[in-house]
Amino acid sequence: MKAEIVSTGTELLLGETLNTSTHYLTGKLSSLGIEVDYHTTVGDNSQRLEQVLHKAIERSDLLITTGGLGPTADDLTKELVAKVLDLKMEKDSVSLEQIKQFFDRRKAPMPSSNEKQAFFPEGSKILPNPIGTAPGAIIEKGGKTVIILPGPPFEMEPMFNNYVWPELARIVGPNAVRMNERVIKVFGIGESALEKVLDELMNLPNLTLALLAKRAEMHIRLVARSTKITSGEALKALDEVEEEIRRRLGNKVFGRDQETMVGIVGQALNSQNLTISTAESCTGGLLGAAFTQEPGSSRFYLGGVVSYSNSLKRGILGVSEESLKAFGAVSEEVAKEMAEGIRSKTGSNLAISTTGIAGPDGGSDEKPVGLVYIGFATSKGVHAQKFQFYGERESVRQLTVQAALNEVRLRLLCKQ
Amino acid sequence: MKAEIVSTGTELLLGETLNTSTHYLTGKLSSLGIEVDYHTTVGDNSQRLEQVLHKAIERSDLLITTGGLGPTADDLTKELVAKVLDLKMEKDSVSLEQIKQFFDRRKAPMPSSNEKQAFFPEGSKILPNPIGTAPGAIIEKGGKTVIILPGPPFEMEPMFNNYVWPELARIVGPNAVRMNERVIKVFGIGESALEKVLDELMNLPNLTLALLAKRAEMHIRLVARSTKITSGEALKALDEVEEEIRRRLGNKVFGRDQETMVGIVGQALNSQNLTISTAESCTGGLLGAAFTQEPGSSRFYLGGVVSYSNSLKRGILGVSEESLKAFGAVSEEVAKEMAEGIRSKTGSNLAISTTGIAGPDGGSDEKPVGLVYIGFATSKGVHAQKFQFYGERESVRQLTVQAALNEVRLRLLCKQ
Repeated sequence: MKAEIVSTGTELLLGETLNTSTHYLTGKLSSLGIEVDYHTTVGDNSQRLEQVLHKAIERSDLLITTGGLGPTADDLTKELVAKVLDLKMEKDSVSLEQIKQFFDRRKAPMPSSNEKQAFFPEGSKILPNPIGTAPGAIIEKGGKTVIILPGPPFEMEPMFNNYVWPELARIVGPNAVRMNERVIKVFGIGESALEKVLDELMNLPNLTLALLAKRAEMHIRLVARSTKITSGEALKALDEVEEEIRRRLGNKVFGRDQETMVGIVGQALNSQNLTISTAESCTGGLLGAAFTQEPGSSRFYLGGVVSYSNSLKRGILGVSEESLKAFGAVSEEVAKEMAEGIRSKTGSNLAISTTGIAGPDGGSDEKPVGLVYIGFATSKGVHAQKFQFYGERESVRQLTVQAALNEVRLRLLCKQ
Repeated sequence: MKAEIVSTGTELLLGETLNTSTHYLTGKLSSLGIEVDYHTTVGDNSQRLEQVLHKAIERSDLLITTGGLGPTADDLTKELVAKVLDLKMEKDSVSLEQIKQFFDRRKAPMPSSNEKQAFFPEGSKILPNPIGTAPGAIIEKGGKTVIILPGPPFEMEPMFNNYVWPELARIVGPNAVRMNERVIKVFGIGESALEKVLDELMNLPNLTLALLAKRAEMHIRLVARSTKITSGEALKALDEVEEEIRRRLGNKVFGRDQETMVGIVGQALNSQNLTISTAESCTGGLLGAAFTQEPGSSRFYLGGVVSYSNSLKRGILGVSEESLKAFGAVSEEVAKEMAEGIRSKTGSNLAISTTGIAGPDGGSDEKPVGLVYIGFATSKGVHAQKFQFYGERESVRQLTVQAALNEVRLRLLCKQ
């Protein structure tokens, strides 16, 4: 079943409004196994909108439209869908009554312009809109299904969930091919290198594999198609490929699906009953912010120091004047002393530190922008690792946070 | 000049990635007075992408594409644009060199697959990509302009601003109707209250005014249309309305256009030669991260403590056991002691502290989720202010950061 989404609204074509409705609907359709081939946005222009609707109905089985259901003259979606499908417009007295009541509740007379919101292509299944004055509609003709929804997300989303989702589930039925998805999340390897490692897995017959480069991680997205009945085999295929990917990438794989790096690290700290603290320079607090973004992080995260100035590195963390002089603030030595310093201050089991040159300024030949040292201290001792990151300031900072979290993850994996 | 935007990427058609690039580009084109008639998104499917590109080039003067410039086999945008425009693909040795250097910097050999990223339709004006391995291109043929940009926003946006914007400004020329935009940024007042205050300014004849609710601030977007020649009057109109808005809202207005709350605060600290430090509980490092997101923040930001646990509040900040017992960690008393504590530790001129209940758990009747105290310490003394925020955990944290920065801003305005 091939679907597409057409959104109309001049505000979308002026860059005022971000088109979140299309994103929302696309996710819903995908999970039902309905393949969305096109998104099209067009303004409130009858000629262009008619052409777009005509093309969409011609090439797709399912068309969902958002917007253009308002009371004003340039709201034309229903009228043009009717024209393209060669259907008359008919008044729905129930809808008209509900629109009148909408205004009654607001102690206001219904403007005559709103009457048009009660007209629909003949044979429409009408979708009530308890929030606004624009009902939606489902129209089926000649094997094509057109679903007309209002533009505002807070009207469209409940209407979709209450009326459209069950309808689509019925239409696709138990034999429909749906997508069984799994996302494997990887840190510490680039896109091209990853492609090499995965090699022939990139073109398997029974599932598709796609790479998505995120700012500080790579996602491997696996999709196995199946019917509701055969979903067992699909899941088996996903398990096998995931196992193979993990075999090839080892502990570069940090999680899957909804799992996040910081979530994984938090779980590991909890399950091992360990506490951690942070000493941050170049990340300026981002690492602490990451640890604390999830509720319940106070169980394992004691806190930390943002030692952005050398005086704080000395004063609170007890980094030695000598090290700062001899090696500079961005050095293995100072990273170690920062981690040791915060650990002894807080009495946490583990401590992690970041010091680096986030840029754009402050780089030199021997210490270029993106040079970062991450220190890691435990009761067993302390060590620091050197990283060279690339990209603008915020990327370097985010990559440092992710690398620091990954450092903790790897340590916890080897139960150190 | 009629423009459209075509974005390609299967992740967009799976509902994984929200299409922010199209929104970004549309806003930029609108401000140049370039009318965007269509947005189209299509997956990494050569047949569908070719059809979409063909249609777009046929009906529009300007086509901007995003995505499909990667090293993998299904990245086909350049190749298909060349096919539609009947142009050969040519290797650009400069780009190839830059891509090689990209890998050299990472001490990695360039995978042969990346070579295709150095091929462009003949006659392309090539747009360097300092952040990634995918250069962009501008192609002009038969009165049509095609601009090819990478998919990731953090690569696409700088490329657009550095190379495409000036080019487009040249193409539209001085007589094109452009939108003169100004954004007034406000903190501490809600959308409906703001609507009331602005009242008749919402419907002025010579410019449009729109309210955009951001997570922790409100933006008032003013747009006055003009040609390049008449832009003087438009700017005058904007100035007058901005002045009136500032008169009505007073110091609730914190900045405009590209200015950010933290940028404004940083400038004020610099110009007054003041240093600041932070003591964070509920914000967990976000406040420090905000201060340090701009280069050069080390001039005024000394650092701080993330005292997520009471032991750190006591241990490093010297918050008294009595206060923690008597008033609890989320209290005016503790907020004050945190601010005093970090100020005396760091010797900064100013210090700011945050303690609150970010939620979703940990709330009670007398201390509900969203209750936040912000402490502010100077040589003249210390005080704390109480806030009640609403929304989910991350909103409460972001609102707290913004309120803390705003607290500093207001203090600096009154030169305290």
